[in-house]
Amino acid sequence: MSNSKLKQDLIKLLGKEKVLSQDLDLLYYSYDSSFLTKLEPARPDAVVFPKSTEDVQKVVSYAYQNRINIIPRGAGTGETGGCIAIQGGIVLDLSTWKEIIEIDVNNMQVIVSPGVVHAELNDELAKFNLFFPPDPGSSKMCTVGGMVANNASGLRAVKYWATEPYILGLEVVMPNGDIIVTGGMKARCIKNVSGINLTKLLVGSEGILGVVTKIRLRCFPKPRARGIAMAVFDQLDDAPATVMEVYQAGILPSGIEILDSSAIMAVNDFKPEIKLPDAEAILLFEVDGNPPSVEYEGQVIQEVAGRRARSVEWATDPQRMVQLWEGRSVTAAAAARVRPDGSRIFAGEDISVPISRVADTLRALRKLAEEHGIQIVNYGHIGDGNVHTAPVINPEIPEEVEKVMGFVHDVHLLAIEMNGSTTGEHGVGVVRKVYAELEHGPAVEYMRKIKEAFDPAGIMNPGKVF
Amino acid sequence: MSNSKLKQDLIKLLGKEKVLSQDLDLLYYSYDSSFLTKLEPARPDAVVFPKSTEDVQKVVSYAYQNRINIIPRGAGTGETGGCIAIQGGIVLDLSTWKEIIEIDVNNMQVIVSPGVVHAELNDELAKFNLFFPPDPGSSKMCTVGGMVANNASGLRAVKYWATEPYILGLEVVMPNGDIIVTGGMKARCIKNVSGINLTKLLVGSEGILGVVTKIRLRCFPKPRARGIAMAVFDQLDDAPATVMEVYQAGILPSGIEILDSSAIMAVNDFKPEIKLPDAEAILLFEVDGNPPSVEYEGQVIQEVAGRRARSVEWATDPQRMVQLWEGRSVTAAAAARVRPDGSRIFAGEDISVPISRVADTLRALRKLAEEHGIQIVNYGHIGDGNVHTAPVINPEIPEEVEKVMGFVHDVHLLAIEMNGSTTGEHGVGVVRKVYAELEHGPAVEYMRKIKEAFDPAGIMNPGKVF
Repeated sequence: MSNSKLKQDLIKLLGKEKVLSQDLDLLYYSYDSSFLTKLEPARPDAVVFPKSTEDVQKVVSYAYQNRINIIPRGAGTGETGGCIAIQGGIVLDLSTWKEIIEIDVNNMQVIVSPGVVHAELNDELAKFNLFFPPDPGSSKMCTVGGMVANNASGLRAVKYWATEPYILGLEVVMPNGDIIVTGGMKARCIKNVSGINLTKLLVGSEGILGVVTKIRLRCFPKPRARGIAMAVFDQLDDAPATVMEVYQAGILPSGIEILDSSAIMAVNDFKPEIKLPDAEAILLFEVDGNPPSVEYEGQVIQEVAGRRARSVEWATDPQRMVQLWEGRSVTAAAAARVRPDGSRIFAGEDISVPISRVADTLRALRKLAEEHGIQIVNYGHIGDGNVHTAPVINPEIPEEVEKVMGFVHDVHLLAIEMNGSTTGEHGVGVVRKVYAELEHGPAVEYMRKIKEAFDPAGIMNPGKVF
Repeated sequence: MSNSKLKQDLIKLLGKEKVLSQDLDLLYYSYDSSFLTKLEPARPDAVVFPKSTEDVQKVVSYAYQNRINIIPRGAGTGETGGCIAIQGGIVLDLSTWKEIIEIDVNNMQVIVSPGVVHAELNDELAKFNLFFPPDPGSSKMCTVGGMVANNASGLRAVKYWATEPYILGLEVVMPNGDIIVTGGMKARCIKNVSGINLTKLLVGSEGILGVVTKIRLRCFPKPRARGIAMAVFDQLDDAPATVMEVYQAGILPSGIEILDSSAIMAVNDFKPEIKLPDAEAILLFEVDGNPPSVEYEGQVIQEVAGRRARSVEWATDPQRMVQLWEGRSVTAAAAARVRPDGSRIFAGEDISVPISRVADTLRALRKLAEEHGIQIVNYGHIGDGNVHTAPVINPEIPEEVEKVMGFVHDVHLLAIEMNGSTTGEHGVGVVRKVYAELEHGPAVEYMRKIKEAFDPAGIMNPGKVF
């Protein structure tokens, strides 16, 4: 089918205002935030802006009849090409369908459309003393639909898990246009063990099984207090050892972040006024809860971390907390600037390893970077072993691109070798699917069985995950 | 195939000591803890006691080749007939395969065989200051494999969820004898979003998709302190209102239990020395955490509950906590004794409703009980809307059995009408499968697709879930 015929058909289905009119703008949809799409952008054949379940169903049914691919998309903040039409098709841009359908304060749950932005949802929930704890770094841009697709998480997964436990039910348009509701058609309850758990199957399935059109999620009472501790280490191994000792002391912080020497240098170069101490590693602990609990946990962390750290500072003053956290806040930006002619690329950026192997992993990453001649900056969510590596290259220079691709491949292999995963929070998309067999072995066959059972025509976000 | 040929084949496969020898003992496997199996016990054709993945694989492969049903079984504490060979077949009694394979303290995870008993696992973990938070009432008997199969929970799901979030990976023998490992073949990490989440799909799938042979689960640091509050209410509606107000005050207790007037009377009749106050409802709050946090939350709960309650008592003294909790501890036993000639039956016993509808649900349950002429005792996990109803009948009297079956059917319909679920924690098994379409609508078709894709021969625990 020609693209102009396709566009006409879609306009007939949805109306003119819900179909991307300027073909030049298709270029925008050739990218997400991954390095891959910078190398190999892939234009969709059409883009639509559904604003209701009915809109989605119309497009999916049409696509099913005509064997056209469907690619659901949130805000495009993904790092893996997951929302890119690598085999052509219709992109469903769900980011403009922003609707907080119901805030059920008494039952501590909320129903949203997929395009609601995470931070905006939490702003609304805060009015009712509630919050939705998972907190991706892209909170101010990313959509709840995208979080569901990727089972997103962030700093606070240590205590609050990823997106998945909070999702109580979903409305989904299946690849043939069927609409299903998971977690109970009319349910507003929290506990439900009736039936095979399709909700949890769909969370993290990256849009290859259906298009999520409504999300019912559980909220938690918003904690009243928060504190930050910064601990500075001369020995890298002391950082993960301290993390484990804090857990042993009975404390589960909401987040524990690490900056290694590469990140410390990057931050100090980027913003000298932050004045991070020169060290092998800095740990940042965030604790939350009620005020006396936060105070107590701050004391324990100071005591435990003090055994190995050169210095520990604890703060509950809002201004000082921002200052202590600032090094971490600017790390991503700082990484991007470590070379005047360089850019930080998102590739191999979120491997997950056992906490006990974080120090070995950071050392191995440095060694790999040296071998490949790549500059890197390392930081991440050490509390759950989720390591962020930022390779910095000049993407205009083909040799550097080639080198970094070799490095990134080794980073993924390293993750598996360290008894970890190629992706702790960003997903597989296009860029990690080559590792599926290595990571999951015969289990991949059963992932394929589900894909084939749900999407026999193979139109739903093809070429992703495995 | 004759049962004696089957037994001989199984002995050839596993050795004599792993096959149930006395045919009379098959009777024991005709039951679990459900009322259904008291009415309609169903004997398996054989019972085996696998002690390794290899054992399980041998039996499953043999069963697959010969099209014989496989029914995995833990401790038989289930309330839904989920482990009963209602269509004949081989029961895999996994309760004798008890092996804590690895406690990885530093990475806060443990690998166990399916037969490990929940309480015994937590006893072991306590030595390392860790715990596995979900806490079914049958903790001292139920197996971790059974908890995975049913996505079990209990008192502490309010704060700590059900079993599912904690399960990081599974080894599973699939219906054709394939062995897969979910969550990463060699993974020991906490975060992993690589691939379709087979782990979460399998948790709660009640043994219809495969036999779980190893479980890798996340533990949490064990909280150091605990406190109990008891609040007594003259108005039923004040109980759920107080629960919601406690949440609004920023407190997430580990558990919130309710006894309504029927349960209070039952307890006082059963053990007069407990002296529960005569009231419309009693709430029991359990909070845990660090010591100052527990004290603080106790104060807030006293203040909030005090607005509506006739009296509130708060205790952190271990002895007094046991006393306050005793009414709840004996409720199940007390319910069984409200009629000298009666028994408490497990049927319709764990519906889940929105917290805001708990009071209406309790009133509706009483009305239904009256209409059907059934005596009931109501209690449950009000913190997450999970209501336990205990019908008490004389199961030897056919008219009473008939009446209670009518009552129980209405209870399940009530749950759905209240925007709830027919089962909050015990599962579907045989007894709720008739409600699958009513509760899930078109989603059931997709559950079936998965079943057919994984188990085309239909040998894995047939006749359950839908």
